[in-house]
Amino acid sequence: MLQQIAPPSYENVADAARRLAGHAVRTPLLRNDLLDDLTGARIFVKAECLQRTGSFKFRGAFNRISRLSDAEKARGVIAYSSGNHAQGVAAAARLNGTSAKILMPTDAPRSKVDGVTFWGGEVISFDRATQSREEMGRAIAEAEGRILVPPYEDPFIIAGQGTAGLEAAEQLAEYGAGADMVICGAGGGGLIAGVGLAMLHHHPATQIFVAEPEGFDDHGRSLASGRRETNDRLTGSICDAIITPTPGELTWSLNAQQLAGSAAVSDEDALDAMAFAWRHLKIVTEPGGIVALAAVLSGKLDVAGRTVCVFATGGNVDRAMFTRALERA
Amino acid sequence: MLQQIAPPSYENVADAARRLAGHAVRTPLLRNDLLDDLTGARIFVKAECLQRTGSFKFRGAFNRISRLSDAEKARGVIAYSSGNHAQGVAAAARLNGTSAKILMPTDAPRSKVDGVTFWGGEVISFDRATQSREEMGRAIAEAEGRILVPPYEDPFIIAGQGTAGLEAAEQLAEYGAGADMVICGAGGGGLIAGVGLAMLHHHPATQIFVAEPEGFDDHGRSLASGRRETNDRLTGSICDAIITPTPGELTWSLNAQQLAGSAAVSDEDALDAMAFAWRHLKIVTEPGGIVALAAVLSGKLDVAGRTVCVFATGGNVDRAMFTRALERA
Repeated sequence: MLQQIAPPSYENVADAARRLAGHAVRTPLLRNDLLDDLTGARIFVKAECLQRTGSFKFRGAFNRISRLSDAEKARGVIAYSSGNHAQGVAAAARLNGTSAKILMPTDAPRSKVDGVTFWGGEVISFDRATQSREEMGRAIAEAEGRILVPPYEDPFIIAGQGTAGLEAAEQLAEYGAGADMVICGAGGGGLIAGVGLAMLHHHPATQIFVAEPEGFDDHGRSLASGRRETNDRLTGSICDAIITPTPGELTWSLNAQQLAGSAAVSDEDALDAMAFAWRHLKIVTEPGGIVALAAVLSGKLDVAGRTVCVFATGGNVDRAMFTRALERA
Repeated sequence: MLQQIAPPSYENVADAARRLAGHAVRTPLLRNDLLDDLTGARIFVKAECLQRTGSFKFRGAFNRISRLSDAEKARGVIAYSSGNHAQGVAAAARLNGTSAKILMPTDAPRSKVDGVTFWGGEVISFDRATQSREEMGRAIAEAEGRILVPPYEDPFIIAGQGTAGLEAAEQLAEYGAGADMVICGAGGGGLIAGVGLAMLHHHPATQIFVAEPEGFDDHGRSLASGRRETNDRLTGSICDAIITPTPGELTWSLNAQQLAGSAAVSDEDALDAMAFAWRHLKIVTEPGGIVALAAVLSGKLDVAGRTVCVFATGGNVDRAMFTRALERA
């Protein structure tokens, strides 16, 4: 049972970083003069859209799959994902010599499906509104003996994602800076849990903020109520990458302690942030991958006078959606 | 007279790197699994579109302007540029406490004009087809006592641009690699001259290739004839960033020795490369900034089996042009 699994520690993140060396990209920490001018803050953007497979998800997937035994690798892995975890798992499976089946929602962006296929992953479609990907995943795992690689409820996954935070802390130190604030999007909360572990280890005074889509702000509401809250629905946001029913149990055991606050951004905020990232940062992001910057640019988090590390978590976006963002530039 | 100026040496590039530390971005060296699969090569992309001001031009401008005396800084600088050098000079002027006037063609992309204005530079328009920016620049320089910061005919500019190559050589070494081929766009040839100095110092067997727009392949034709050839026209390409009349005299004194070959790419090749960079590398590039990758993807340079360092030199592009590229994705 998941609730019996211990959450990862900072040491697990450091161990994951050693495991990922030479496989994951050490993504750059970008800054921009206009962004600092506009906000009155000193903002650093950890560009995980430049990660292998186009999102941070490769980190956790590689950390998890590289730990499989040869017998487990012979059986293969299975995962469910709106697309970024899917690509991360497919790539990590290929690079570790095993096979992957991936459950993807029927409304997953085409580019994400293509990414899975490129890595030799087998895609199985499901309806996000009516079918439970968790149940389908478990059923196939049992029938075929495949190892389930969950998107966030796993200590190796969380620790792997946390390597993005470890790098950011090291890169901030190169600037002689420590972050007053970290802002990171969350679906299940794996990335922000791991990032929190790493950043708080290096700079305990850092405040960790979660950014979510309006109407899907389960982390923000959970933080307010003190217990894991559920979203009313699972469709209706363009931020497909970070729409999940509720914070993970394992991830929340960390996030409940580590989070300092939250912000919810609109679809328009996310599109505006994509346009800003295109025009000024010269990076390609997807709506769910840029909610942290959207929280800053929309003024929904006050960053004036602070040193801020913002996570840009993914860039796997279809042309039509990107064009919508450009039209707002 | 320019012909009496000695070209920079590798030591000048190393000195420029020390000067730029903490001011320029150490841009990442990107790689992509699909790109390697498609080409049968091992390709690294030096993403200078992520440089401060959106192109490599900041490097040379900062190196040059930071060497001005206090008396020279009191008089200010002047530059002529289609936009990327303009922004580099405006930023470097501001950061070094001096003022900048910039001659920009009337058809310069709006985003480039905005970039100059952001940095407090004063824009003066000229007609690319009928007016000589060199003559206008010299006239204003004489009238106001401003220091002309040329786009490429200056040892400090060439050495500054060369720091991009120095970084790339160091980053390749981190991968345990040395480049068999370097591919870089050229307008006046300052970047590729400096990059050649740096890359050949670290890996003398590297072959340096220049990529240019079709119909504006003055470097390619100069390489073939053994003397500096001139382009028939200065308009008619979407690669505005790298359209110049002829290779620089100072830059050519290096490039004539350093270049191993050339390729000319079409506007469509450049747009396709922009689309590839958007979809797979997650970076924003402009047509003239991605001709080197275009030479690879179009097959105009054969890279199979080689380790290749491709320079993506700029990302300052208007929405309409970017949309044209997306439509080809």
